[in-house]
Amino acid sequence: MPPAAPRSGDAIFASVERVNAELFTLTYGAIVRQLLTDLEEVEEVNKQLDQMGYNIGIRLIDEFLAKSNVSRCVDFKETAEVIAKVGFKMFLGVTASVTNWDADGTCCSIVLDDNPLVDFVELPDTCQGLYYCNILSGVIRGALEMVSMKTEVTWIRDMLRGDDAYELQVKLLNQVPEEYPYKDDE
Amino acid sequence: MPPAAPRSGDAIFASVERVNAELFTLTYGAIVRQLLTDLEEVEEVNKQLDQMGYNIGIRLIDEFLAKSNVSRCVDFKETAEVIAKVGFKMFLGVTASVTNWDADGTCCSIVLDDNPLVDFVELPDTCQGLYYCNILSGVIRGALEMVSMKTEVTWIRDMLRGDDAYELQVKLLNQVPEEYPYKDDE
Repeated sequence: MPPAAPRSGDAIFASVERVNAELFTLTYGAIVRQLLTDLEEVEEVNKQLDQMGYNIGIRLIDEFLAKSNVSRCVDFKETAEVIAKVGFKMFLGVTASVTNWDADGTCCSIVLDDNPLVDFVELPDTCQGLYYCNILSGVIRGALEMVSMKTEVTWIRDMLRGDDAYELQVKLLNQVPEEYPYKDDE
Repeated sequence: MPPAAPRSGDAIFASVERVNAELFTLTYGAIVRQLLTDLEEVEEVNKQLDQMGYNIGIRLIDEFLAKSNVSRCVDFKETAEVIAKVGFKMFLGVTASVTNWDADGTCCSIVLDDNPLVDFVELPDTCQGLYYCNILSGVIRGALEMVSMKTEVTWIRDMLRGDDAYELQVKLLNQVPEEYPYKDDE
């Protein structure tokens, strides 16, 4: 456990400024639709959503660290739990579970209990290859990179593609132990 | 006054599902950046943001009517007050004031007390013609069209352009008195 217990996701979520979830959902839908129109290839849309998420993640980590009292996780296992229990709650108002750890503790799945991005969404047949929520994988990847963890984040299950849950696999590629990534405001 | 008093914006905002405002702000920023990259012309970006907002507005009005107990406003003056005091609160968590009415009560300004879309935003010199928050004008236009009011919504003041406030002018073009716009789910 870290020296100071992190604040609960509920407590943080209650204290931060928020906007209406439906507005967010519809705004996100507008992005995806725009990208589908502009880029045409579903695979390119997946890439672009991931990249947008990455750019958001490298900014959101600041708010996360400032509000959560989470300073340093002892290992990747704790990191994954913090993302699921504190991160998802703090930003989307939902929680998630961590499962499917591999033997050496460098790969796990985050399963979402609820997913506000997909309310009212149905994919037309022409978009079957789309990872609609790919922004989320980018956010996690970007945020973790700012705390020196290179990861690969991929969708294992996606209810919009007919699966029975939203499951993200997070695989730790390498961890730079001490270097803190100083960065500019922009 | 309408027969049943509308619920206050605060009460509704407290009861709806919400997401973190910073996540919303960064996500919106990602849209604008994407449009600037894809469309190049700032004027085209303004148009596209307005159109996205319009598409969101024609959906959001359902949530607004369902949650707010606002059924029918007696006139455009009441409509503008409801947008400012209930609508902005319910969706963005901020309030706004209505001012600058013209003589016949068909044109007014909505001035935002706070604008969560623009946190951390600074426009580079190349984007000086951009109406960064143009999605908002589209949302109002779309939502009002669904309750039979054709409007023109334009920015009068924009702090990102050096003004001292965010001021939207809402001009009623025509009002279809009785026709309720039935529409499909999509």
